[in-house]
Amino acid sequence: MSVLVVGSVALDTVKTPFREVKETLGGSATYFALSAHHYTQVSMVAVVGSDFPRKYLDHFKGKGIDIRGLEIKKGKTFRWKGYYEYDLNQAHTQRTELNVFRTFRPKIPEEYNKIEYLFLANIDPQLQLSVLRQVRKPKLVLCDTMNYWIEKKRKELLLTLKGVDILLLNDSEARELTGEHNLFKASRRVLKMGPEKVIIKKGEHGALMWSKNSHFAVPGYPLEDINDPTGAGDSFAGGFLGFLAYTNDLSEENMRKAMIYGSIMASYNVEDFSVKRLERLKDKEIIERYREFKRMTHFEDLSE
Amino acid sequence: MSVLVVGSVALDTVKTPFREVKETLGGSATYFALSAHHYTQVSMVAVVGSDFPRKYLDHFKGKGIDIRGLEIKKGKTFRWKGYYEYDLNQAHTQRTELNVFRTFRPKIPEEYNKIEYLFLANIDPQLQLSVLRQVRKPKLVLCDTMNYWIEKKRKELLLTLKGVDILLLNDSEARELTGEHNLFKASRRVLKMGPEKVIIKKGEHGALMWSKNSHFAVPGYPLEDINDPTGAGDSFAGGFLGFLAYTNDLSEENMRKAMIYGSIMASYNVEDFSVKRLERLKDKEIIERYREFKRMTHFEDLSE
Repeated sequence: MSVLVVGSVALDTVKTPFREVKETLGGSATYFALSAHHYTQVSMVAVVGSDFPRKYLDHFKGKGIDIRGLEIKKGKTFRWKGYYEYDLNQAHTQRTELNVFRTFRPKIPEEYNKIEYLFLANIDPQLQLSVLRQVRKPKLVLCDTMNYWIEKKRKELLLTLKGVDILLLNDSEARELTGEHNLFKASRRVLKMGPEKVIIKKGEHGALMWSKNSHFAVPGYPLEDINDPTGAGDSFAGGFLGFLAYTNDLSEENMRKAMIYGSIMASYNVEDFSVKRLERLKDKEIIERYREFKRMTHFEDLSE
Repeated sequence: MSVLVVGSVALDTVKTPFREVKETLGGSATYFALSAHHYTQVSMVAVVGSDFPRKYLDHFKGKGIDIRGLEIKKGKTFRWKGYYEYDLNQAHTQRTELNVFRTFRPKIPEEYNKIEYLFLANIDPQLQLSVLRQVRKPKLVLCDTMNYWIEKKRKELLLTLKGVDILLLNDSEARELTGEHNLFKASRRVLKMGPEKVIIKKGEHGALMWSKNSHFAVPGYPLEDINDPTGAGDSFAGGFLGFLAYTNDLSEENMRKAMIYGSIMASYNVEDFSVKRLERLKDKEIIERYREFKRMTHFEDLSE
């Protein structure tokens, strides 16, 4: 099965304690696609301006990513400028230029109508809702959001969540959305809003997946050098949903495996700036890190 | 094998968003002993004042804890007053009255000389060092410390670490001790200071164990209600070292199991105020939670 992502394609200017990169390829749909394509066919719905470098379009095509849904609009591409201090868990936004993204109204091409795996990346919940209305009910809808929408478009977000199977958010967003500091209670509340599962990303501390009767915890992968945390969450989503679409198996066991693949993609992504690490990532490396996750979490059962 | 703990016995006054308790049983040696005794025989070296309630001495004795090394000195018992806000990971100290603890010079009774499992709880590293000099080299020395000693008694702490097998500390302490923000690098540095292993406690995010060639991660146990985080670290130490002493097996596999028992004891301890939960804890509950840790971390291997 293939996956469809609706999100942003951007030019990012990012500064970390180690380096600065200017106007490099970024955006939620970008990270998702360059992560998920390691597992399955990816189609992208997004918008860029007429100034968007052609080489990046060739990038996507070269990876076999279907960009028929990537609109090129007169004007400037969405730009984000931010920095990280030594605590790389926390992004600080300096400037957001929406540009052509301001009037983005995602149109799902007819050929994607029957898509089974959909990722609603972090965009205005009103747009996420419009996407849900354009597609026949997919097999699985994964949805991301952020504090800004939780505060400014709560009503629309709650409406969107009714059509979402899995909500992906970080710990502070989970707390803000539910008003619960305790993540156990916060997860319970999310499950009452519509989604059957909720995945809580905790940066270096890993990720949790909760459903009504199950709880799964993956630790963070121990990295000696983290160079650029930008896009970690979308890389996670790409590995998670890419693997699920590829295997087309929504059992709890397979979802847990998908959590590992998501964690692997996020851990690789932060090793280099922008999308560089995802681009040169080899299947062999994914397998190696899966084994490493298995090793670092293994302990014997009571009966052994 | 039995374990020996050298640490504090205190009267704690603790306030959380949920409740306040006054002058209740506390201290690092107390939590450790009431946790470890679920696994093996525990002996305690500490000091209390002549005001120390007799009922607490009976408490220890009733649990079979050997308190021949618990000195009763003229004067007042060590008191700690602190509070927690909604972020229960962070203790705020309001007052520390050392009282008889100010002149505490641990004397290891001759009958403990050949102890094989030793816990140096969080006390002045100079005292920790004096304990190491009084005992024949034990099979395993586990050592705790805190920011205060890292700042004020760095030299003495570094000397102590040369005689320590496993250092137990939380993430901010690991960062402060080593000057490394990244926990991977921080752990490497600790291993160069003497210990063969380092355990980093991360509160609700679980714990990590590092050695030269191995890394093990346990997630935090998801608790719906955390009532009092006081003593979580010492309860962890009690489960960890108590299990190791009981099994007398220092293989990596067995240490990983010990990490789970440590996590179990910490997770139970925070469910109620003071030592109440540890006191009424049943073996059956320990086993149940071990199984739950296994379930919540399980994912299939690549080949399955």
